[in-house]
Amino acid sequence: MPTTLKLGMVGGGQGAFIGAVHRMAARLDGHWEIVAGALASTPERAQASGEELGLAADRNYPDFATMAAAEAARHDGIDAVSIVTPNHVHFSAAKAFLEAGIPVICDKPLTSNGEDAAALAALVAQTGTPFVLTHNYTGYPMIRQARAMVEAGDLGELRLVHAEYIQDWLSEDLESAGVKQAAWRTDPQQSGAGGAIGDIGSHAFNLVSFTTQQRVERLSAQLQSFVPGRRVDDNAHVLLDYSGGARGVLLASQVAPGYENEIRLRLSGTKASLEWHQTSANQLRFSPLGQAPQTITRGGVVANEAANAVSRIPGGHPEGYLEAFATIYSEAAGLIRGGAAPLLPTVDDGVEGLRFIEACIASSAKDGQWVSWG
Amino acid sequence: MPTTLKLGMVGGGQGAFIGAVHRMAARLDGHWEIVAGALASTPERAQASGEELGLAADRNYPDFATMAAAEAARHDGIDAVSIVTPNHVHFSAAKAFLEAGIPVICDKPLTSNGEDAAALAALVAQTGTPFVLTHNYTGYPMIRQARAMVEAGDLGELRLVHAEYIQDWLSEDLESAGVKQAAWRTDPQQSGAGGAIGDIGSHAFNLVSFTTQQRVERLSAQLQSFVPGRRVDDNAHVLLDYSGGARGVLLASQVAPGYENEIRLRLSGTKASLEWHQTSANQLRFSPLGQAPQTITRGGVVANEAANAVSRIPGGHPEGYLEAFATIYSEAAGLIRGGAAPLLPTVDDGVEGLRFIEACIASSAKDGQWVSWG
Amino acid sequence: MPTTLKLGMVGGGQGAFIGAVHRMAARLDGHWEIVAGALASTPERAQASGEELGLAADRNYPDFATMAAAEAARHDGIDAVSIVTPNHVHFSAAKAFLEAGIPVICDKPLTSNGEDAAALAALVAQTGTPFVLTHNYTGYPMIRQARAMVEAGDLGELRLVHAEYIQDWLSEDLESAGVKQAAWRTDPQQSGAGGAIGDIGSHAFNLVSFTTQQRVERLSAQLQSFVPGRRVDDNAHVLLDYSGGARGVLLASQVAPGYENEIRLRLSGTKASLEWHQTSANQLRFSPLGQAPQTITRGGVVANEAANAVSRIPGGHPEGYLEAFATIYSEAAGLIRGGAAPLLPTVDDGVEGLRFIEACIASSAKDGQWVSWG
Amino acid sequence: MPTTLKLGMVGGGQGAFIGAVHRMAARLDGHWEIVAGALASTPERAQASGEELGLAADRNYPDFATMAAAEAARHDGIDAVSIVTPNHVHFSAAKAFLEAGIPVICDKPLTSNGEDAAALAALVAQTGTPFVLTHNYTGYPMIRQARAMVEAGDLGELRLVHAEYIQDWLSEDLESAGVKQAAWRTDPQQSGAGGAIGDIGSHAFNLVSFTTQQRVERLSAQLQSFVPGRRVDDNAHVLLDYSGGARGVLLASQVAPGYENEIRLRLSGTKASLEWHQTSANQLRFSPLGQAPQTITRGGVVANEAANAVSRIPGGHPEGYLEAFATIYSEAAGLIRGGAAPLLPTVDDGVEGLRFIEACIASSAKDGQWVSWG
Repeated sequence: MPTTLKLGMVGGGQGAFIGAVHRMAARLDGHWEIVAGALASTPERAQASGEELGLAADRNYPDFATMAAAEAARHDGIDAVSIVTPNHVHFSAAKAFLEAGIPVICDKPLTSNGEDAAALAALVAQTGTPFVLTHNYTGYPMIRQARAMVEAGDLGELRLVHAEYIQDWLSEDLESAGVKQAAWRTDPQQSGAGGAIGDIGSHAFNLVSFTTQQRVERLSAQLQSFVPGRRVDDNAHVLLDYSGGARGVLLASQVAPGYENEIRLRLSGTKASLEWHQTSANQLRFSPLGQAPQTITRGGVVANEAANAVSRIPGGHPEGYLEAFATIYSEAAGLIRGGAAPLLPTVDDGVEGLRFIEACIASSAKDGQWVSWG
Repeated sequence: MPTTLKLGMVGGGQGAFIGAVHRMAARLDGHWEIVAGALASTPERAQASGEELGLAADRNYPDFATMAAAEAARHDGIDAVSIVTPNHVHFSAAKAFLEAGIPVICDKPLTSNGEDAAALAALVAQTGTPFVLTHNYTGYPMIRQARAMVEAGDLGELRLVHAEYIQDWLSEDLESAGVKQAAWRTDPQQSGAGGAIGDIGSHAFNLVSFTTQQRVERLSAQLQSFVPGRRVDDNAHVLLDYSGGARGVLLASQVAPGYENEIRLRLSGTKASLEWHQTSANQLRFSPLGQAPQTITRGGVVANEAANAVSRIPGGHPEGYLEAFATIYSEAAGLIRGGAAPLLPTVDDGVEGLRFIEACIASSAKDGQWVSWG
Repeated sequence: MPTTLKLGMVGGGQGAFIGAVHRMAARLDGHWEIVAGALASTPERAQASGEELGLAADRNYPDFATMAAAEAARHDGIDAVSIVTPNHVHFSAAKAFLEAGIPVICDKPLTSNGEDAAALAALVAQTGTPFVLTHNYTGYPMIRQARAMVEAGDLGELRLVHAEYIQDWLSEDLESAGVKQAAWRTDPQQSGAGGAIGDIGSHAFNLVSFTTQQRVERLSAQLQSFVPGRRVDDNAHVLLDYSGGARGVLLASQVAPGYENEIRLRLSGTKASLEWHQTSANQLRFSPLGQAPQTITRGGVVANEAANAVSRIPGGHPEGYLEAFATIYSEAAGLIRGGAAPLLPTVDDGVEGLRFIEACIASSAKDGQWVSWG
Repeated sequence: MPTTLKLGMVGGGQGAFIGAVHRMAARLDGHWEIVAGALASTPERAQASGEELGLAADRNYPDFATMAAAEAARHDGIDAVSIVTPNHVHFSAAKAFLEAGIPVICDKPLTSNGEDAAALAALVAQTGTPFVLTHNYTGYPMIRQARAMVEAGDLGELRLVHAEYIQDWLSEDLESAGVKQAAWRTDPQQSGAGGAIGDIGSHAFNLVSFTTQQRVERLSAQLQSFVPGRRVDDNAHVLLDYSGGARGVLLASQVAPGYENEIRLRLSGTKASLEWHQTSANQLRFSPLGQAPQTITRGGVVANEAANAVSRIPGGHPEGYLEAFATIYSEAAGLIRGGAAPLLPTVDDGVEGLRFIEACIASSAKDGQWVSWG
């Protein structure tokens, strides 16, 4: 195992959810050590958060700009930074580190709007600095298996793409009740124009793009805000036409009582179907036309090379969300060490994600009119 | 138990599938005896089919017109007729029996086009003769349970209606391969303009209407014929706006390899969700916001009166498709004996079904433009 | 379809559960018409029950002896009798009909003790009159599939046999609370010495015997009466050694809260395993060593001839308990018409069932000492 | 977060499985850093393995005795050692570190025989050095939930304890085929007298003990070696009587084709049942008598304090085996820092485990005779 890489973090301080997830993911496979941070949006909270994490005082920064400059100047500076702030900060933070020559691992969505996304992509291209987007669900072994099977033609010609990401946590007006997570995620200034479509719809979209490698030709979307007073959508129904001829339906909801983080993906081609649910993430249903449906399991006898490459333990013992997330971090380590990481989500995936969000918003604003992808 | 009723049948002879299903359904609860028939579209096959079923020679008719006249004239004539022909015959056959004053139990869809459907509804209204449409899935105890729960407000205000009916049997071009079922079901002359949308989409639509009691305000549909040369749609993606504010997505597919007759229904309201799959028809998932999801079982401790009224055996022992179908026949018997059967699908449900099919076709023809329900 | 056969029934009158099940099962496939009965243990209740069922007055008998004599004397007498009384009446009722030359379809367990069982088997042998035992679970298509697969060697040499039948309905002292079903089933005078082991353990045992065709060499049993005051066992844990070398565990419980009629069967051989649960009766899990587990479905593409022979409707549409039960009745009709019915449970299965029950009781009485099967 | 603790490791070098698992588990929550090791049984392989892990040269030891002495002598010596060797080395390795005053985290089973286990327990008592046994399944949040619910009386008085741990990886004679894992695990000299009963049966036993807090009074076991030539059991069927009156059945098998690491636990009391499967580790089925069965989910609305204390991420996102294992390491860190860790498996659990294994072997040797626990 090569030397551990040094990781910095922007955001993810006290009270945050996703920051802790990133830290666990970074630690799991032993490729990263967290040594620096600007962990909150005020210097005071940043300071306190860094102390909690045990950061050295001189690497516990009050803000990301200071951190980028200081770390770039150190001979033992960080090998990469994780950006886990609310969405609207992604752009400026990423810009700061990229310009300082520090590789970026950024939470999704890439930015809070498509313009920023494009600018960031241009900056990545210009600087040549590694950039990774944490579309963590692509790290699930059974998702890797699915992608490889689609690519190998096991499904034949793709016809149907059905995906959904369903939650219930915004079924009520939590933002008015002072729940911090709800407040920023439903505030267009912080999360961008998309609500459910941005927060979880973009994950479902990416999952579909990753597994099918199909490009959207056009889409028609219906976004709703069911909860009175909510400023962003909390539900989305989207139809998608793919260039290869497949037709898709993508559902995203934050108002479905009793569903925690239900992600379901079903792909059907001329020869077979695949179905995957996050609740049984270690299993993949594969049903070839004219044969009995099979349950492919992570670590199991018919798991393919792509799945096995990102599996850690024997079949039957479940791996979960953190392991999938850790795969992103471990592949990012490989990338930063100079290796190839062809399956890692990139800034371009982030641009596509924003395009998806904005196309949905545009279509919905015109009562579901088809929007071309271009 | 009152005297057994006498049933005649039109269609359902040799080689047919649904006729045998109707006969099993009619027999199960002991309310019906099959005594007459015009079982096929040619006198010879009708004759042979009737002999196989053991019909008396004088009630084994060459065609439905002869049968309607003769049975109406007998003092021991049939109490009702089942019409289980291909769709395009429904109208004329039903007309013949209604005009002869004989109650009709008709397979779905009601007719092969909306005009005929309206005419039939008018005839039913005019004659006052009982008319039952066999939307058999409404007979499932857990579907009855769901309807009663929605009606009782257990879900709160309805927001989301997700339904799908997925098959694989038309994934390939069976109609050209001489498969009889495939041939008539993909022939617009026999089945009507709708393919998947008519054959199974209409079931899913009815299931939603039945359980939610919501009216559609408008819909947007995308119908496809994935199999080259197919003359009707084999896949449908439909968005629905309900007048009460709920938003729906309905999927119907006959080209999803590895799915036999997968029917899934998910309803979410402000207070709770319900989810039902035909493959586990004796269970209903009920997930109230802020409580653990519950599994309601047919025959189980929290099954409600509506479910228990149509259950036959203790919980844990599965009832299935035929039992649900039998409930339609048993309630039809009650209706014909003069009782009430408020949950039985009627000619009006058939009219709605055709309206749904034709609205989907119209919307799809205009690239998914919204079609008002009116 | 040949002429409908005439069925009589002993027991199954007002308030009974299993009688109605037998009647539905007899009707489903159209082979039987119920024309006579001695439906209850007192002439008054028998009379009232027969009237409810619409029996002709002269075939609504006060007791089974009268019925056997009268029906045997009629030129249009019944073709068979169903005996659905509490267990202790099986023997004398079956004897009366067998001696009258009338075929018997008898609920299980065969009798309330092994001595009667042996006597009945001798009588069947002596009279040559057809005798069918309604071990209804053997009628499930996926159970037929399993038996055929084991027989064909798909599992290799059988090693493990794990079966359970779990309920909760006797978790409390219902017999003292006046529940009729509980009262007779926990009364050794009416149900025989076995409680759970007799009522449901014998079903699980038969299911194992049917699917594996293995003979027990010896067994060790632990029977409990968890509910204070209960006169029979309400839970059984049984270890079984099979002559072919397989080892088995059989669990039967009536005191497992939240389990309705949970029947699970798992067979493992050198080459593959099979697993079946009654709650998903249309599916059979087949997992060959070194391959992905498969889901074999009733009516599906890999259902075998044995399964298809007893399936009625396309895959995906569930068949259930009543259909499996109906298969017993339909095969019984075939047998009585002179055909072969090699898979029908016989009086010998009934003798084996009593042997099983009595061996369990004997072993348990000696603190689990092994009892040879002989 | 307090300062990271320093961990050493004995065993777990190249080709080992469980060592890598321990390292991931140790890293996940950030409490441990691996700084020293004696990673294999020969100095050469130990050396190479340590280099792969990036251990400093002076802490990459040739054997555990050297390591114990050297680390005890350092001022920055390890805070604990993980022992992840084959079973027969546990005792001597643990002894060396305990005597050096270094806390031990030891894989299970504790030792390869009961005598050593007792000696080790005595040594732990005598030295007062912390000792943790990695019965990792006890770290699953839903297992913690189950234990707390049983303790709170949610199940009433416990009646039934059904547990199983089923695998297929030893269905064939892999030990003769040169598979290293198979070789040592089926070698009584390395793994102890128990095969399946020791390797996985002891896990199932511990899981039952942990969740129920019941003591075994006596047991009856049947161990088999199905695979010809195998020197240890590969299948076990065990009956258990608990002192509180509950009756148990425990199955362990390594010859069940198609089962990867299937762990199922079902507890029934007078008031309710609980059921848990490792394949759906984030869910716990809770079925109170007379209520609908509920699905309790990790991170969900009714997860209790005990479950939440060891959960990391929101419900719906699955946690898995490594997270449960990590909980053991994190609680061990707490213990070693001087805190309380009342739910951590101890050396006494290890002694009980060996007692279980040896009692099963003794009972089986006497053809299933009951063995008192004493």
